[in-house]
Amino acid sequence: MSSRTYADDLFPLEVIEQGEEQLSAGSSSPSGTPNSVDAANSRIHVGWMTTPFDVEENLDRQVAPYCTNLGESKYNFVSFPVGGVVRAFCKPTALSEHHPPVIDLPDVQLANSLWETYINGKVSEWIDCDSEDLAFATLSEENLLKELNYVCYLGLQTMTIELKRVNSPRTAAILNKWIWTRNSRFTVWVQLPTCLEKCMGFNGQTNEKSLDLWTIWADFRKLCGNFSGMYLQVALSLSANLPNEFTEPKLVERWKAESIGAFIVESDLFITGKFGETVLPSAHLSLLQSLWSSDSLRLVLRAVNDVFKYNKAVKFEWSQALRHAVRDVLFKIQKCSGESSTDSAHYLNVIEYKDVLQAPLQPLSENLDSGVYNTFEQDQTKYVVYGEAVEGALKDLGADGRKSVVVYLLGGGRGPIGTKILRAEKIYNSTFRKGRDPLKVKLYIVEKNPNAIVTLKYMNVRTWKRRVTIVESDMRSLPRIARDRGLEQPDIIVSELLGSFGDNELSPECLDGVTDFLKPTTISIPQKYTSYVVPIMSTHLHQTIKAQSIPFLSRAIPSHGRAEPELDEDGMWIQKYPQGHVVNNMDQIYVVYLSKYIPLFSSTKPVFTFEHPNFTNSSNERSATVEFDIDRKADLMGFGGYFDLQLYKNVMLSIEPSTHTPGMVSWFPAVIPLRDQLRVGENDKIRLKIDRKVDAGGVWYEWHVEQLKPSGDVINTPLQNPNGQSYYMRM
Amino acid sequence: MSSRTYADDLFPLEVIEQGEEQLSAGSSSPSGTPNSVDAANSRIHVGWMTTPFDVEENLDRQVAPYCTNLGESKYNFVSFPVGGVVRAFCKPTALSEHHPPVIDLPDVQLANSLWETYINGKVSEWIDCDSEDLAFATLSEENLLKELNYVCYLGLQTMTIELKRVNSPRTAAILNKWIWTRNSRFTVWVQLPTCLEKCMGFNGQTNEKSLDLWTIWADFRKLCGNFSGMYLQVALSLSANLPNEFTEPKLVERWKAESIGAFIVESDLFITGKFGETVLPSAHLSLLQSLWSSDSLRLVLRAVNDVFKYNKAVKFEWSQALRHAVRDVLFKIQKCSGESSTDSAHYLNVIEYKDVLQAPLQPLSENLDSGVYNTFEQDQTKYVVYGEAVEGALKDLGADGRKSVVVYLLGGGRGPIGTKILRAEKIYNSTFRKGRDPLKVKLYIVEKNPNAIVTLKYMNVRTWKRRVTIVESDMRSLPRIARDRGLEQPDIIVSELLGSFGDNELSPECLDGVTDFLKPTTISIPQKYTSYVVPIMSTHLHQTIKAQSIPFLSRAIPSHGRAEPELDEDGMWIQKYPQGHVVNNMDQIYVVYLSKYIPLFSSTKPVFTFEHPNFTNSSNERSATVEFDIDRKADLMGFGGYFDLQLYKNVMLSIEPSTHTPGMVSWFPAVIPLRDQLRVGENDKIRLKIDRKVDAGGVWYEWHVEQLKPSGDVINTPLQNPNGQSYYMRM
Repeated sequence: MSSRTYADDLFPLEVIEQGEEQLSAGSSSPSGTPNSVDAANSRIHVGWMTTPFDVEENLDRQVAPYCTNLGESKYNFVSFPVGGVVRAFCKPTALSEHHPPVIDLPDVQLANSLWETYINGKVSEWIDCDSEDLAFATLSEENLLKELNYVCYLGLQTMTIELKRVNSPRTAAILNKWIWTRNSRFTVWVQLPTCLEKCMGFNGQTNEKSLDLWTIWADFRKLCGNFSGMYLQVALSLSANLPNEFTEPKLVERWKAESIGAFIVESDLFITGKFGETVLPSAHLSLLQSLWSSDSLRLVLRAVNDVFKYNKAVKFEWSQALRHAVRDVLFKIQKCSGESSTDSAHYLNVIEYKDVLQAPLQPLSENLDSGVYNTFEQDQTKYVVYGEAVEGALKDLGADGRKSVVVYLLGGGRGPIGTKILRAEKIYNSTFRKGRDPLKVKLYIVEKNPNAIVTLKYMNVRTWKRRVTIVESDMRSLPRIARDRGLEQPDIIVSELLGSFGDNELSPECLDGVTDFLKPTTISIPQKYTSYVVPIMSTHLHQTIKAQSIPFLSRAIPSHGRAEPELDEDGMWIQKYPQGHVVNNMDQIYVVYLSKYIPLFSSTKPVFTFEHPNFTNSSNERSATVEFDIDRKADLMGFGGYFDLQLYKNVMLSIEPSTHTPGMVSWFPAVIPLRDQLRVGENDKIRLKIDRKVDAGGVWYEWHVEQLKPSGDVINTPLQNPNGQSYYMRM
Repeated sequence: MSSRTYADDLFPLEVIEQGEEQLSAGSSSPSGTPNSVDAANSRIHVGWMTTPFDVEENLDRQVAPYCTNLGESKYNFVSFPVGGVVRAFCKPTALSEHHPPVIDLPDVQLANSLWETYINGKVSEWIDCDSEDLAFATLSEENLLKELNYVCYLGLQTMTIELKRVNSPRTAAILNKWIWTRNSRFTVWVQLPTCLEKCMGFNGQTNEKSLDLWTIWADFRKLCGNFSGMYLQVALSLSANLPNEFTEPKLVERWKAESIGAFIVESDLFITGKFGETVLPSAHLSLLQSLWSSDSLRLVLRAVNDVFKYNKAVKFEWSQALRHAVRDVLFKIQKCSGESSTDSAHYLNVIEYKDVLQAPLQPLSENLDSGVYNTFEQDQTKYVVYGEAVEGALKDLGADGRKSVVVYLLGGGRGPIGTKILRAEKIYNSTFRKGRDPLKVKLYIVEKNPNAIVTLKYMNVRTWKRRVTIVESDMRSLPRIARDRGLEQPDIIVSELLGSFGDNELSPECLDGVTDFLKPTTISIPQKYTSYVVPIMSTHLHQTIKAQSIPFLSRAIPSHGRAEPELDEDGMWIQKYPQGHVVNNMDQIYVVYLSKYIPLFSSTKPVFTFEHPNFTNSSNERSATVEFDIDRKADLMGFGGYFDLQLYKNVMLSIEPSTHTPGMVSWFPAVIPLRDQLRVGENDKIRLKIDRKVDAGGVWYEWHVEQLKPSGDVINTPLQNPNGQSYYMRM
């Protein structure tokens, strides 16, 4: 609804009336100037749902003036029966014997672009494919198909279908086939009441105690193959009495992990506020505000009587009251993101990465490019802390009055930590040696990327006054090279080889490669790192990971798995995926700036820990079982992965949520997905079983989940990434 | 090179100098106002190629000022050695014994965005992977890989590599693997001389008589798997003496079917024009202008001596002369498209469809939507001619003084031809009956699309004064329905069931379905239609068809072949392609507004003809062999498909190029692709063998090509679309 067309004739978007400003001034909103109120209002799209109270003669042929009229009351779109009101509002009882009225909403009364932009097509209310009356169910199926066809014919971009029952397998089967096999894409809003009593098939029996509306939706979405939340969304229809699951935060929160398209609000929910204004009750307000995550959401007003016919003002008041309900949330979002942003975050424009899947870097097997180095180097926070760690080590070593310290920077990239090391020397000397007997740092930078070597040499001349010895080598060859060239042994080794899940860029293997060259007293910065996981729920992320596909021109780009591209008989390169593309997608670790998700446990738990130097050459294979108690019904999508890093003594870096280093943006969380979403229940235990395996060529994780039901039943999900077939970190 | 960045500091884009205007006024260009000259100049991007004449001390560390300097002479980018000038310009003879200088062009001297925008990375001139000196070839391979890696490291968007030899299999093998298997995309310009003598390995022997530069390029491109022309392009380096293949239009034309990235012009080509200005010789001008198809092409100046060092003006003159050379072409393109555009073309915005693949409509098995009808209805030309045909038939029938004529519009859509039929009645009566004994048209509209029926009913009330009888039915059921309802037999049947290749929307099958209901005298409009083909060359189209891939959310959208989507064990729908995606892509007919292509024969030839009414019920299966004589070496991509349509007597519609109905835009050409491009030679004959096959469920084409060499050898391409596996027109 963004681009202005000649539709503006139908829905005039004039400047908001004067009363507006006063209303908002009277409310408790932290809103700003009148202009920002207008701007916020215009970002919030409110629609009108046509009901039998709207019906006037010939309405199905008067859609244009009807829309114009609604536009004057500030409704941005209409949810209108796609077959016309005559057909939509006939009584179902009469239908099993008779044919329903035919679809009769002529297309040519509106330009095609107006249908697209201003009309949400509502499926006729009497249609009920899951009716116990089988003849009526069949009649409903036929007519649902006709209406879906007509939605396509009109070129509508969104439609609404009511979910009437606890179980709707026939409705789901029709929609499932439709959305997957039709070449016309539109968004389906599945209208779900927020009150179980409104669902047919619910009888309040004991065995339905655990039934909730989230489950009804989640089951329906699953029956539709978990189709993309871009095209299959829930429209929550708010009831007067909200059940527990729509008031208790930990249950409400689950909807943040689902795709919501709209909120439908009935007109009798409104009450009169302190200043005489039309407002929603506080429970509804708080529900709306907690789930209002973006201005791409929609609000829909459904009148429950015909008062609006005689009182045009009330129509306007409703639409504005809906805007007011969520407008402040929007302000809050903007304010929050403004407050928490750092210079680094600003530079990296992290917002653009929200929920975007990234493959973890494999800097060991693939050389980073200049742009990637440049991006990382913007994160000053990280380098400042590295500098502090080096200062700490210099202070401890220098306490014996020594004149020099040999420092090796292992994997120096373009050298930003090299600069910090030399600065640490300066700080140490000015603080502890006061100009006498200065401590000299002899700095070696080891780097395997021949391209970065060009930069290091340039930096050495230009910035470091040729003080640095640059060694072009994989650090694992350093012991041999040092022997050959007679290089000094290090007092300190510094490296930054960590990934979002700690060891996943093979820091343990790289650092073990230099052990033979160390003194017994050599300090490693970092000294120790630990990975952490938390179970997460996110339908969006599940769908996004599953839906990745490979364009033709990328067909030979190496997978992240063990197999490599091959030359086929036609002389073209190709990467094969014997495990199938979907399994390949699901069996990888991703890096994601998580947004549309919720954690399903209050805190993370540790997984793997590594310490350096590893003088005992203990194995880098690991096996961990991490158990979580589940406190609500939910769909487990997988696990968020994090790490913390002890650089030196108490100098730490962390992306673990409870200890996250403020302002540091170098690492987004890792995600360890399950192949399918796993339905978990209150009082279930889940155990992530994850192995870190190593062979001559590389390292990989294998994982699966054990679900322990209160009944004692145990469910095991399939082992993912066996033998590193889909995700293999090459050495 | 489009977005303005802070790079403007380096390359100032000031207003073009005054001298500019006078120069263009003095030339023979049809250019317009000074402002339009400036605008045209700024659209044409000219680069400078760094040569040994540029080399100054420390140039590899002075890229920023060097670029600024070039910007002042109006060069938009630089083709600079990616390893630096020291490395690039060393002598190859010295290299086989010694190591070449290392890459030493530090990245941090320019912001990353400037490398991307302003630098084309040139591979070192001495690199020759196909050298007869095998040690040197191996050294070259290693160093080419290093330079490709460095192109990625710097984040360059384009690079240039010289094709030095008639055969370059080792160079091709390296590039082929690189472009297919690397995750970093940049455009490779393959620099090709326009003079065979400049290619090593050419010795002018008799057996090389047929060798030309186009073949050298086409072979190289094929060895690179015909990778996308977005990323693998030829850069033609113009020589002083242009051989025949760069002056004879039919040979030059072949480059229009290839992906050209740039033209490289050496400074000694310039001559002094009539008015003392710097210009290119006419042969070069004419070559450039005939191939200058878009302002995304680039021009690159290569100085052959150091005169520019002492005479800064000459540097500017060269860049402006290159702009002048092609600037007028641009004006011509704009003018042409302006002249040929019609209101319909304007409405449909046909330019946007250039070279875009469309699947032919299957209106019989899939109902069209309102937007598609609306688009077609914009093409007034087509409906006007249909009206003329109906007028002609009414005149002939009405000559006996009859009072009524029964007309059936078969497949009426939303009824635009219905309106033309009623208007034809009015015109006939006012012309031939002068108000006395008016002829009455009894109009029936038969339409199977239930959604369009809603529109037809609305139109009948609103526009046609309820004069039309609307029959909701597939026309093939009309004989039965007419019998049941006692409908009158038609005097005229009118239909518009044609596709871009004539019968490919199953007009023959549909119209045969009503034959039982006709009178012996019934007139069919159309009476007859014929399809045509012409062999075409287009690497771009071949690549585009091959490269289509299916996103995950479209995995269950029905193929155009015989198989239909299935429900898999997980409850998700999926369309399977046992023949493989590439074969599926190649074995279909497409509809394409052809742009980057050339026909390989001077005229089309007919394929299949159908006449109506088909009272003898003769079969609609067909088998045709269409032969063409090839007059030049080329790559045959497939065939352009067209049709013409005899509506009534001499009232025709046509998209066959030589008889194309002016201003009609309803149909773009069809394309019948081959699986692989077929190299054809002068004096070859090629035969398209194409069958139209019919079974109970639908219709399909099968085709292949027979190539007859002058030697008598015959090559057969594989049979495409056997049994309709990839393209099946459902009935």
